[in-house]
Amino acid sequence: MRLVSFVSADQVAGYGFVTEAGLHKATADLRARYLDLRALLTADGVAELSTAAEAPVPVSAVTLLSPVPTPDKIICVGLNYAAHIKETGREKPKYPSIFTRYPSSVLGHESRLLRPKISKEFDYEGELAVIIGKEGRNIRAEDADHHIAGYSCFNDGTIRDFQRHTSQFWPGKSFDDTGAMGPWLVTRDELPNPEVQHLRTRLNGQEVQSTPISDLAFSIGEMIEYVSKVTKLLPGDVIATGTPGGVGRFRNPPLYMFAGDRIEVEITGIGTLANPIADES
Amino acid sequence: MRLVSFVSADQVAGYGFVTEAGLHKATADLRARYLDLRALLTADGVAELSTAAEAPVPVSAVTLLSPVPTPDKIICVGLNYAAHIKETGREKPKYPSIFTRYPSSVLGHESRLLRPKISKEFDYEGELAVIIGKEGRNIRAEDADHHIAGYSCFNDGTIRDFQRHTSQFWPGKSFDDTGAMGPWLVTRDELPNPEVQHLRTRLNGQEVQSTPISDLAFSIGEMIEYVSKVTKLLPGDVIATGTPGGVGRFRNPPLYMFAGDRIEVEITGIGTLANPIADES
Repeated sequence: MRLVSFVSADQVAGYGFVTEAGLHKATADLRARYLDLRALLTADGVAELSTAAEAPVPVSAVTLLSPVPTPDKIICVGLNYAAHIKETGREKPKYPSIFTRYPSSVLGHESRLLRPKISKEFDYEGELAVIIGKEGRNIRAEDADHHIAGYSCFNDGTIRDFQRHTSQFWPGKSFDDTGAMGPWLVTRDELPNPEVQHLRTRLNGQEVQSTPISDLAFSIGEMIEYVSKVTKLLPGDVIATGTPGGVGRFRNPPLYMFAGDRIEVEITGIGTLANPIADES
Repeated sequence: MRLVSFVSADQVAGYGFVTEAGLHKATADLRARYLDLRALLTADGVAELSTAAEAPVPVSAVTLLSPVPTPDKIICVGLNYAAHIKETGREKPKYPSIFTRYPSSVLGHESRLLRPKISKEFDYEGELAVIIGKEGRNIRAEDADHHIAGYSCFNDGTIRDFQRHTSQFWPGKSFDDTGAMGPWLVTRDELPNPEVQHLRTRLNGQEVQSTPISDLAFSIGEMIEYVSKVTKLLPGDVIATGTPGGVGRFRNPPLYMFAGDRIEVEITGIGTLANPIADES
């Protein structure tokens, strides 16, 4: 299934799934029991959604949010593709490099991302996002699949000058409205092996990143094993698995995003996450 | 006022304030309107609490939680005292070094902190915590006071080997049950200028850190200004302002915490946050 969260035209938040026929909203009865998609995942209720949804309406009738708008955690992995490690001048690391984003920095498909007035270095980072479906601590890499709800496209939008202020990436990674996830969460049964898929990022239609997911330096299982040594993973938690080579900062000349631009992250088997760019007013 | 959050003996979560007479719990009526202390701060309802509390009971009758158990954000500042910057071999930075902790890593006064089995490098970091009372983005340093609800003691407990795995501090800072805040939140009216106070950390009664808060490299106002450039600060958000010199890692020999130890962070004008250490079972 392709799970989505959204706000309808009358400003009511909801969730549901998307098919060729359109958006199937969860019934009011289901939403009374499971407030949001995170609650549905926590209750292992996705199968229930398929039998408790309304007749389809056009997806364009709603504003899509990040599929899990308010996860407990958004954990990002840096420097996780061989080509990106190389372009930053670093060696392949022994451990995954982990930082966090806050949900206020992550929007949904087709929402406009905001370049903050304070910076002219707003960069894209196309990534595969893994969404947790079953809680766990000290998960072994070989058991990680059972803890995954599904996958989505992620744009780990970055304010590069703020990322470089100190050794810690957080300031560059947490500006409100600078990242995105979507267009939907594809459940694991429909994408049993995401590492055979291909990721492409396009800025104004021009391809700027292209990589097979199989080039990940740390596998999805290894990332889940490492993070779950530190803290318990909960349903709805997001792991953004890192970006490949081709980011704007390491191009010559650098390539940053400004008002009027359009950034897309496509992953085969999932779909395309697209966002227009606006300048902060 | 000294605001606390707690779980009572019958496992019901509540909040209230502490005086010489004991713990004054918020009435059920107030809790029906404001679920927790974060909701009370958001509603600017602290004055209301003083007239909607029960007769005092012994504080020992409850388990104290972190004063704000589930804030939206816990933002930590690294390397913020001259002596600690010096002991790590670094230069005084131009920008504050920011990383995050998750609420699952922060317990309350007298709860046992857990050394994870995976590490023998569990270190203390005594800090002043600032709790936000009024939301704001792009707050100027000179206006920051108006956005502060109050202050607390903070132990930014750290798994040093995981902190050093990569350049990013997060893995060392987010192990479940390794940090603490408390014993209470002292409201700003009772501590108009925390920078004249003194911070001391004691391990098993022996003083291991001692610094005037005035030695902060970045002032509280400067920290709030910087963080609020990135993201909107919300009521209940915590800024842990950094630790002074004397942490266990830079001692010769290093001094780490194990089962049976007791760690205390005292700040004059606030009180003492004490936690026993246990090993993960």
